[in-house]
Amino acid sequence: MDFKDVIDKRRAVNFFDPEKPVSDELIKELVEMAAKVPSSFNLQPWSILILKDNDEKMKLRKLAWDQPKVSEAPVVFIVLADRYGWREGHPLVERNFSEMVQAGSMTKDQHDWFINACKGLYGETEEKQQAFACKNTGFFAMALMFAAKHLGLDSHPMDGFDHDGVRKEFNVPESYWIPLLLAVGYFDEKKQLHPPKWRKTFEEIVMKFD
Amino acid sequence: MDFKDVIDKRRAVNFFDPEKPVSDELIKELVEMAAKVPSSFNLQPWSILILKDNDEKMKLRKLAWDQPKVSEAPVVFIVLADRYGWREGHPLVERNFSEMVQAGSMTKDQHDWFINACKGLYGETEEKQQAFACKNTGFFAMALMFAAKHLGLDSHPMDGFDHDGVRKEFNVPESYWIPLLLAVGYFDEKKQLHPPKWRKTFEEIVMKFD
Repeated sequence: MDFKDVIDKRRAVNFFDPEKPVSDELIKELVEMAAKVPSSFNLQPWSILILKDNDEKMKLRKLAWDQPKVSEAPVVFIVLADRYGWREGHPLVERNFSEMVQAGSMTKDQHDWFINACKGLYGETEEKQQAFACKNTGFFAMALMFAAKHLGLDSHPMDGFDHDGVRKEFNVPESYWIPLLLAVGYFDEKKQLHPPKWRKTFEEIVMKFD
Repeated sequence: MDFKDVIDKRRAVNFFDPEKPVSDELIKELVEMAAKVPSSFNLQPWSILILKDNDEKMKLRKLAWDQPKVSEAPVVFIVLADRYGWREGHPLVERNFSEMVQAGSMTKDQHDWFINACKGLYGETEEKQQAFACKNTGFFAMALMFAAKHLGLDSHPMDGFDHDGVRKEFNVPESYWIPLLLAVGYFDEKKQLHPPKWRKTFEEIVMKFD
């Protein structure tokens, strides 16, 4: 699908057709497509839990304001953001360093420099950790929504859930923040889609501070 | 451009052609395209500063590890994330409420409910504020990068900068976090593009906690 159409046609749909499942193959294609987005030092601090089982979705729905779409959508992702994905010894940190050495863009003796740069930019304070985790996972989640539309699917990003309750129910380690839930499936064509909401104009987005 | 190509061809390019400017018209098209992304309660907590002037870009470059692309790119965005964009009385919060009342999806007497929901989900703790600001601005910034590619442009997201230094130099109020800088322009075809970096596989992204 042309990107202009993806941008225009992607909508957060409230009603999914519970009779139309999404194949495992398509979920894999969706996730691998989105995984190509960039990230801070290529650290890719995103992960997902995939819920398809009805009992699991009902457990999540109870913690998500009892929103029907959580159980009606054939697939729901619990999207995770690794707040510690910048630490020395973290598998992704060390793998990135090795790959850069192998590609010739860094030398082995730059390990300390790399670790300190990761720490200074992403780990120094709790606000930097949270920004690192949530911004990069935001890139990934946005790409999931676009890729879904491209593949003929619909989606709905959700914030209305009990963050700590979901963490506890699904045994999510403390190292992860849960920036959103993402329902994925096919829009229920029997329902009506609301008109798109307003957006800020160019002039409202661009600022200038004197 | 087909979305599959946008995903595959978008690269963080290190070299911009300084001889190829980007028109104001194209910048506007780019920003308005990206502005269609979803956000928490449609609060759109993103803004940008647009730098085109060479002296301005040099000031930024000095605070961004002296990376040549900061001044070589014809346009650099300082991307801002509003950490307080959930508060009662904030223009975007109140505008969203009014628009929902007008659209019939909320009634006037639900104002307290709406304000409390915003506060509970996005404002209760500093980590929630940061997650709200950076996740949503991550959606917007990812769309900027895709839209750039779609419009024939290239981009490079950057974290390597002195956050507080940039805030001070460009008079950015304390209410905003700066999740990234984004260089925008045309790849310098005389230079060589590195091969794409590795990405996590589907199996590495999907987690299961027992």
